[in-house]
Amino acid sequence: METLSHTHTSSAPPTPGQMYGSAETLHRIEDVNAARGDADLGRRLVELRTWIEDDLSDVERTLAALDRAPTPMHDSARHLLSLGGKRLRPMCVALAARAGSGFNTAARDLAVAAELVHSATLLHDDVVDMGDVRRGAPTSRVVYGNAASIFAGDWLLVEAIARIRASGFDDLLDRALGVLRAMLNAEALQLAARGAFAPDVKGYFTVVEGKTASLFEWAMYAGGRAGGLSRAQCDALEIYGRNLGIAFQVMDDVLDVAGDATEVGKSVFTDLREGKLTYPLAIAVERDRSFGEALRAACLGEATAVDPELVRRASEVMRTTGAVEDSVALARRLTSDAVKALGALPAGRARDSLESVAVAMLQRRK
Amino acid sequence: METLSHTHTSSAPPTPGQMYGSAETLHRIEDVNAARGDADLGRRLVELRTWIEDDLSDVERTLAALDRAPTPMHDSARHLLSLGGKRLRPMCVALAARAGSGFNTAARDLAVAAELVHSATLLHDDVVDMGDVRRGAPTSRVVYGNAASIFAGDWLLVEAIARIRASGFDDLLDRALGVLRAMLNAEALQLAARGAFAPDVKGYFTVVEGKTASLFEWAMYAGGRAGGLSRAQCDALEIYGRNLGIAFQVMDDVLDVAGDATEVGKSVFTDLREGKLTYPLAIAVERDRSFGEALRAACLGEATAVDPELVRRASEVMRTTGAVEDSVALARRLTSDAVKALGALPAGRARDSLESVAVAMLQRRK
Repeated sequence: METLSHTHTSSAPPTPGQMYGSAETLHRIEDVNAARGDADLGRRLVELRTWIEDDLSDVERTLAALDRAPTPMHDSARHLLSLGGKRLRPMCVALAARAGSGFNTAARDLAVAAELVHSATLLHDDVVDMGDVRRGAPTSRVVYGNAASIFAGDWLLVEAIARIRASGFDDLLDRALGVLRAMLNAEALQLAARGAFAPDVKGYFTVVEGKTASLFEWAMYAGGRAGGLSRAQCDALEIYGRNLGIAFQVMDDVLDVAGDATEVGKSVFTDLREGKLTYPLAIAVERDRSFGEALRAACLGEATAVDPELVRRASEVMRTTGAVEDSVALARRLTSDAVKALGALPAGRARDSLESVAVAMLQRRK
Repeated sequence: METLSHTHTSSAPPTPGQMYGSAETLHRIEDVNAARGDADLGRRLVELRTWIEDDLSDVERTLAALDRAPTPMHDSARHLLSLGGKRLRPMCVALAARAGSGFNTAARDLAVAAELVHSATLLHDDVVDMGDVRRGAPTSRVVYGNAASIFAGDWLLVEAIARIRASGFDDLLDRALGVLRAMLNAEALQLAARGAFAPDVKGYFTVVEGKTASLFEWAMYAGGRAGGLSRAQCDALEIYGRNLGIAFQVMDDVLDVAGDATEVGKSVFTDLREGKLTYPLAIAVERDRSFGEALRAACLGEATAVDPELVRRASEVMRTTGAVEDSVALARRLTSDAVKALGALPAGRARDSLESVAVAMLQRRK
């Protein structure tokens, strides 16, 4: 796939030893359906969480110790943070640090910073999208108001940057500023796409790399730096983070369109009107032009109720064009590249864990 | 004044030579009414703008060269920046740099950063306050929408931090992060005061120091650093910036309550309901408790129309309690302290200009 060529290559050509992850893992990725429900993989993921449990507790304690002033801004930030979430970005930092000398104070602060950046974007996104529910609870903006959520997002962004600065790794600060620019650029493109209907595959990847992959990429690289790994090893972690970040979003999209046909069809329109595009839809529209035209007319039209026939067709076209299967195939290829990059790391529990995470990601059902 | 004691002292005791600005300037400040319409002062200010005209043009060119991508986010940021404004913060950086070795590339980038931080806060403030007009034009949020303004504010903040980081002065980055925390804390306090009616003088200064003075303080210090001044001289510039920043806001408040009695009375209520407090009102409420009680009842009540009798009384109480005169006296004292701090700087055109700015600030009528 032309538009993704840069995700396949590292800046230096890999040595043969770096080219391949463990044969077993690559086999799992090639045949991910056979791996579903793999009891061994499930056990390894449980062990992984136990292994880094103390690291994540340390992150939680630090997040909970943020300024506790009794203002709507502080309450708004704490409300979101207290609801938990998957803490995937701190996990990335922790595992990358453990591929080196281990999870130290710098790694802790960088893990906290990654979660703060993510939280800042969620606070602003919920205001922009008028989101009412997140992590199974009313959003901060519903509880404390839009104004508080806007300032809370600003505040968490500042707290994140302050922690990266305090870690003393100047390159991480510069990279973080690049990540923030890419994230905001992606938000800007998504906003520009509202009411414009211009679904294209290239734009899809710019948005996904900006909104999702860039922060995962940074989290992996940052953990590697905190753990004292070489620049080449940190670069490999970055490649892992980028590929897995994109694969994560593509699988998210697949799950989005895998449900009940009517629900899927409706959410396609809601998303499109908000300028949001899924990968399966982007390729379905490329492959079935007449469907693309019908979709354009419906999205640009004034009608708020969507034609049920078109709703049915959306779901059907994604099936008949092979959009869903090809999305899964792309996620699999990206994951395979992610695992191959791990060849640059020292063999050991951290590398094995990162391989397990990659395989598990392809199997997730929510 | 107890709550302002820290604005009067520098960390190191000033030498006798540092204690006093030029006798002429201090005399002007003591007798500011006599100085009104001072032809000599007017001429000096015109000369000052001419002197730093190239510096400010350089700042404008850099601001205009920001990423010009055609998205609502970028348009939103550019709309605000293109409307001009007084560019007071870049002026501070330029004059401070000229007190040292001159206006160089670092000073230019720091001046741009100061304006970007200010612009970022304006973009978010206009969304929060639902502001419709700024700098005589529709606000960015009116033209490009709230979502674009939220992301535009985030983006300018990131661009500001990236420029401060690129300047290579690590202490300026750390101070800037402190300024941003103080600004957001002030926003949070103001938000918390909405619908709560707790006007107090101490809270007033926390908000003013956070929202206004802290960035002026930073701009002066940053200019001094770019111009190669000693830390002690930069500290003096910082004291000047803080005192003048607070004086600037107090004079703004005085101008706010100096107009038509009915208009003034009405704006008092609008402001209070948004959690905004002026200095004259804060001391009027302290001095006339029964007025304070009447105001509290009106602000916490459900009625949207305000009793015309109370509107008349607001204006009257500020006159009878001496609130306006005492506000001007405070601004004068702060300005005098600002000018005294300049004693630490080398004598010359930059120092003279900073003195002129201080005197002019007390005389401004808009």
